[in-house]
Amino acid sequence: MKYAIIGVGAVGGYYGGLLARHGFDVHFLLHNDYHHVMNHGLIVDSIDGDFLLHRVNAYASAADMPLCDVVIVALKTTQNSHLDNILPHVAKDGGTVVVLQNGIGVEQNIAQIVPGRTVVGGLCFLCSNKIGPGHIKHIDYGVVTLGEYTTGYKPAGITSILESLSKAFQQAGISVALSENLGEARWKKLVWNVPFNGLSVVLNSTTDQIISIHASRLLSKEIMMEVINGAAACGYNIDKTFADQMMNLTEQMKVYKPSMMLDFERGSPLEINAMYWQPISMVEAKGHSMPATRMLALQLEYFNETGQGQVRA
Amino acid sequence: MKYAIIGVGAVGGYYGGLLARHGFDVHFLLHNDYHHVMNHGLIVDSIDGDFLLHRVNAYASAADMPLCDVVIVALKTTQNSHLDNILPHVAKDGGTVVVLQNGIGVEQNIAQIVPGRTVVGGLCFLCSNKIGPGHIKHIDYGVVTLGEYTTGYKPAGITSILESLSKAFQQAGISVALSENLGEARWKKLVWNVPFNGLSVVLNSTTDQIISIHASRLLSKEIMMEVINGAAACGYNIDKTFADQMMNLTEQMKVYKPSMMLDFERGSPLEINAMYWQPISMVEAKGHSMPATRMLALQLEYFNETGQGQVRA
Repeated sequence: MKYAIIGVGAVGGYYGGLLARHGFDVHFLLHNDYHHVMNHGLIVDSIDGDFLLHRVNAYASAADMPLCDVVIVALKTTQNSHLDNILPHVAKDGGTVVVLQNGIGVEQNIAQIVPGRTVVGGLCFLCSNKIGPGHIKHIDYGVVTLGEYTTGYKPAGITSILESLSKAFQQAGISVALSENLGEARWKKLVWNVPFNGLSVVLNSTTDQIISIHASRLLSKEIMMEVINGAAACGYNIDKTFADQMMNLTEQMKVYKPSMMLDFERGSPLEINAMYWQPISMVEAKGHSMPATRMLALQLEYFNETGQGQVRA
Repeated sequence: MKYAIIGVGAVGGYYGGLLARHGFDVHFLLHNDYHHVMNHGLIVDSIDGDFLLHRVNAYASAADMPLCDVVIVALKTTQNSHLDNILPHVAKDGGTVVVLQNGIGVEQNIAQIVPGRTVVGGLCFLCSNKIGPGHIKHIDYGVVTLGEYTTGYKPAGITSILESLSKAFQQAGISVALSENLGEARWKKLVWNVPFNGLSVVLNSTTDQIISIHASRLLSKEIMMEVINGAAACGYNIDKTFADQMMNLTEQMKVYKPSMMLDFERGSPLEINAMYWQPISMVEAKGHSMPATRMLALQLEYFNETGQGQVRA
């Protein structure tokens, strides 16, 4: 069984590193860091134990990679336009593509680029950063929730492919949860991601600051309810108390910068499409609207284009 | 005829200064600048000609002021809680109170504080700043639109009080336009004020920057349409092409910082109540909603409380 890791950042570097460390046959597609990793290997500083992979199967071009049974897509969604050129080279017919990305809608796109492969969505609850070329720092957590994609995000159940992926990941020391309903799992994650990723950029604030002020706490909760209602329009019933659970979770997180705030401060493009426009268009296709989410998306587009993030950081 | 000016900032200093300069009997209520103005007078640097008023009828307390026939309220709306204590001392029974403030709803409040006075709303199209104690810089424009207030902002027509006010103001070199319908005039001003005041703070940008990016230009226009629909819910029919007119006006204005952005950068409280919550509650009372305006208001409350403005400026 061959594994491909597309994108060796905080997510791909960590999970791919764990797989390689535990003896899996892993092939890494890199871009800027290719030469560095060829010469110096891949370093993972982890709360569960640091490790260095001296020799890494690194590639600068997908055309040089072998066909792999499991392709793990760990790019930022803002890089997804490259998948058209990458996936046909690495995703073996009959194999699996695992999408470890934010937002929703990407699986649909991948199923069109490489038909004949099983597409699995993965939601990472992971706190890690790339702190240098080929150098990942794993700070906390790491569980991956996997769900199989079917056309239109209809519930797929717990399939045998999910079970074998789970087994392999667990052998590599990765905690896995399985979801019968990828669409619901993605929408549940959006309940938190939509308010806090966007507001952290627009309000220039960490999540603890956002929930410490009455007005922005109220706004976060209102946006959560809008996402829950949006999910319902798409056929996923998320209990309204889930918003309270997410608020409680946010309280426990203390000082926290959502990924979009980190992207912004780094001057990287923001994942507005996968996290905002995709769910908005799914809800609009059902004849409903998400006005607050839409307004946040438009504000984020402004910040994305004018890029004030590095000045602020 | 005695005139009172309540609040001697960019608005009250300029219009009050013009009235005093042209021989009207004007009495100024000051706060921080009282001693400075007593000792040094009031300076107005104006594109229409600079002038200095050596001797000014200045007061530090409303209790010391004479009852006046025309009381001009030129405080920021964020200071309006003081009007309860000020107006009964200066507003002569049977006289007139002119409200030169942003937003909507203030006239209603003043009519309750001093019943028996005619309340007139004034909308200033004025570009001026207070650049020091008792020192006003008039940069451009200056026309005041006056409309008489009636309960519930029903159209009052062009009343004799409006006509005599207009005559007096024009004798002082102030351009005046009269409105038969104060409610409509205030809503029309909100069509511009709601999007651009709020977005300038939230997006940390001047109006020319806001309209230069597709997403925020679209958002500004959408908020304008929401305000126009809100006005319609309250019984004021503003033509939908008015939004385009306002966009064109904004284009002609070039680099422009709305008053709320200036307040924010100064560390002053933001006029969120008069400019946002008042119109929102009027529309909600009619069974409609203004979701984008509401979201902007909540975001502004966050910035108002956390006060990042002086760091940015």
